[in-house]
Amino acid sequence: MFDSANLEHTVSKAAYRREEPKLREALLNAQYDLKLNGRFPVLILIAGVEGAGKSETVNLLNEWMDPRHIHTHAFPPPSDEERERPPMWRFWRALPPKGKIGIFFGAWHTQPILGRVLREIGEAEFQRAIDEIVRFEKMLCDEGVLLLKYWFHLSKKQQKKRLRELSRDPQTAWRVTDLDWKYFKLYDRFVEVSERFLRRTSTGEAPWIVVPGADRRYRSLAVGRHLLSAMRERLDEKPVRRLPDRTPPLLAAPDRMNVIRALELDQPMSRAAYEKERDREQARLALLTRDKAFRDIAVVAVFEGNDAAGKGGAIRRVTQALDARLYHGVPVAAPTEEERAQPYLWRFWRHIPRRGRMVIFDRSWYGRVLVERVEGLCAEADWMRAYNEIVEFEQQLVAHGIVLVKFWLAISKDEQLRRFRQREKVPFKRFKITPEDWRNRRKWDAYEQAVCDMVDRTSTAIAPWTLVEANNKYYARVKVLRTLCDAIEAGLARAKA
Amino acid sequence: MFDSANLEHTVSKAAYRREEPKLREALLNAQYDLKLNGRFPVLILIAGVEGAGKSETVNLLNEWMDPRHIHTHAFPPPSDEERERPPMWRFWRALPPKGKIGIFFGAWHTQPILGRVLREIGEAEFQRAIDEIVRFEKMLCDEGVLLLKYWFHLSKKQQKKRLRELSRDPQTAWRVTDLDWKYFKLYDRFVEVSERFLRRTSTGEAPWIVVPGADRRYRSLAVGRHLLSAMRERLDEKPVRRLPDRTPPLLAAPDRMNVIRALELDQPMSRAAYEKERDREQARLALLTRDKAFRDIAVVAVFEGNDAAGKGGAIRRVTQALDARLYHGVPVAAPTEEERAQPYLWRFWRHIPRRGRMVIFDRSWYGRVLVERVEGLCAEADWMRAYNEIVEFEQQLVAHGIVLVKFWLAISKDEQLRRFRQREKVPFKRFKITPEDWRNRRKWDAYEQAVCDMVDRTSTAIAPWTLVEANNKYYARVKVLRTLCDAIEAGLARAKA
Repeated sequence: MFDSANLEHTVSKAAYRREEPKLREALLNAQYDLKLNGRFPVLILIAGVEGAGKSETVNLLNEWMDPRHIHTHAFPPPSDEERERPPMWRFWRALPPKGKIGIFFGAWHTQPILGRVLREIGEAEFQRAIDEIVRFEKMLCDEGVLLLKYWFHLSKKQQKKRLRELSRDPQTAWRVTDLDWKYFKLYDRFVEVSERFLRRTSTGEAPWIVVPGADRRYRSLAVGRHLLSAMRERLDEKPVRRLPDRTPPLLAAPDRMNVIRALELDQPMSRAAYEKERDREQARLALLTRDKAFRDIAVVAVFEGNDAAGKGGAIRRVTQALDARLYHGVPVAAPTEEERAQPYLWRFWRHIPRRGRMVIFDRSWYGRVLVERVEGLCAEADWMRAYNEIVEFEQQLVAHGIVLVKFWLAISKDEQLRRFRQREKVPFKRFKITPEDWRNRRKWDAYEQAVCDMVDRTSTAIAPWTLVEANNKYYARVKVLRTLCDAIEAGLARAKA
Repeated sequence: MFDSANLEHTVSKAAYRREEPKLREALLNAQYDLKLNGRFPVLILIAGVEGAGKSETVNLLNEWMDPRHIHTHAFPPPSDEERERPPMWRFWRALPPKGKIGIFFGAWHTQPILGRVLREIGEAEFQRAIDEIVRFEKMLCDEGVLLLKYWFHLSKKQQKKRLRELSRDPQTAWRVTDLDWKYFKLYDRFVEVSERFLRRTSTGEAPWIVVPGADRRYRSLAVGRHLLSAMRERLDEKPVRRLPDRTPPLLAAPDRMNVIRALELDQPMSRAAYEKERDREQARLALLTRDKAFRDIAVVAVFEGNDAAGKGGAIRRVTQALDARLYHGVPVAAPTEEERAQPYLWRFWRHIPRRGRMVIFDRSWYGRVLVERVEGLCAEADWMRAYNEIVEFEQQLVAHGIVLVKFWLAISKDEQLRRFRQREKVPFKRFKITPEDWRNRRKWDAYEQAVCDMVDRTSTAIAPWTLVEANNKYYARVKVLRTLCDAIEAGLARAKA
């Protein structure tokens, strides 16, 4: 992979002076077109060997273009804010919005490569990291991100020369540390691991672009030209006639039986029994969340359900037992402008809690495979790939020690009608019923199918759905409280083990 | 993932009798439309737990449709023919051509799942297998295969009941072996491993479809209906206006330096020196290929190069030293009709040698990123993904112990002109020069760029390219012979170690 980059490439001063002003102008124009077009973000990854001109190139790009519309991020060792979230959180929060350019100076590739070079991680973990990165980058590309991955390379001889030169010059000697020389001794292993990494993570949509880094003028023109042509190609693209995205249909059950219909929605529970159970579970929840080990875990609770199924009421019974400083409620409605400029999971990633905290989502990322699917707000291929992306996302939460509980509150069609009518009658409940609720109700069967597919494709051993029979609110609330307590209890036990 | 499938699904006899004849007719029609349409193959994977109706469903599909156009393959323990090739070879050779339906009863998923359940393979190998399968299935889908993956499920209770029923009936008791009961004891582990596997290999283009298997009528209608709608959807699809495939450009070097131009094409070698060296290397090759350990390896040699660079001459100098029973030459021209009905790598997989044999490709799978790219015979997205697919393919060969050598024979533009003119003059060489050669020559620069990208993206530590300076045929032939001998020598040493 480094054959070309190992050659001695040069560009003369004269040639550089001729081309640079034109390139610069064209890049600035492309940047402004990107801002006007506003349909996609550009994400530039800067990676490779030390001394190959990575930071110089980042500076140059900021110089050539308007730095106000470039978000440059380096990723030093994670802050405690970052350490307390899953590893990908820091990259999610830094993603550039549509219309902007983001430069990541080192990114998700850094840890797996260095970890493997220094033998801090084994082959299985390296493989898993590669697999996750391929899935993540595919998701970014599917979401429309123009992802450009530059790998700056130096041959062993060139790197040695470069480190020597930097050390000799008093103005730059500070840049060469003992660590650099230590890493230089690992050059061959670094190249071997990197090559394997680059090979496995180079895909058609996001190939690594290897840049020979020894000659400043050469690498500057190489990156500048490539960035320009990649942006122009995307900015100028015109729709073509192509076959639609090829996603096969999901299974339609030949009988009337499915996970929702299998539920006995009317569960008995008297008011008196409810109050007793509620008090007991709330006391339990209060104790659990005040356990010392709670500081080592975090909780994400997801509430989904039919309209009028009692999500709000159930959530209130949970929060009554919680210290207000401890939890954060996230009501999910239509995305804001800022959120629409990002991949759809971005607006949920931003709310992922630190250690010792709980976040309660009133509706969630499952909107993608429910309302967006049923209402045709996204293409079939988009919601089909979302099952996979969501499972991947939840896996990252769970792997980080986050307790994840997901509730589907189910009521019958008759019970919903009764509640809708009641809401219309009771003045202080009227805000809770809108024409949209009646519209959704007309698509009951389509929603039911979407819910069943959702459960089948995202209820996993590590993040199971809890289906809550909710015709009787008392029963539903107690089941929610108890399930949540059980999950936290298990999470605390794992944290203590 | 098995929530729906764990429910008790049933379809009444009456409902089945009403629907079955209609479904059957529609499936037969779809099968004939597929044959007429001829644009894609259908590949059905049948997987899941024992006793869930897998073989019954395969029989039923063959009964419902015209079995002459269905290729059904089971994959018992590999034959020696198969064991001597990389594991995927047996699946490649069984792929259905366009216009046909293939049913794989057990496939590439079987070994990784069972291996992990029985703890014969570790987590790293399981991860790697998943990664390879995701890449392989993506390639099939990108090549237009309609891939339908059915997973037949039984709950633990259902499986126990089913095994008991089969054992009690004298007509079916033979089907239940001690092994089945042994596996039944592993039910929970099997489900845990399977769920992880299904989760990681379910993608938007090729999701697993979980089929509840306990009720014969239910599962028959479920699979039949799903197969019908998947086929109809693809058969009836109309082009839509969409943005083009999104592949960023590759790097264009700002200087005139590249891996080809860096070569000193004129290498000195006299005829006398050549004859001495050739004799020595040919003798070495003859000895190496007669080594006892040669029976444990295989050799794949790939010859690519400029037109008139001397591929044929170099190949002859190799084969002169070989026992004719030992090697097989594959001249690669335009694909045959049979080959065009398959993914493009198929026609190379079919020639992968058994142990103890050598295959020499005169041109190869690299046509995809050379002539097909330059002449626009495939879309940009197709040749962009091919780099990755080729590297994956070659990795499978090398992992199986095959010695892979890849030669690019390079001559200068002037030398090519000289040879073209000479060919036109010498009567017995005239067949070697065609108008196409002159046409290609006019695209010299585009081909050079394609060659450099090819080397950069497919020259890997495990399968490096050997660039051969070929203006002097003597030098080129000796370099080819020596490189081949060195590679076989190293391969024999590995086999003996």
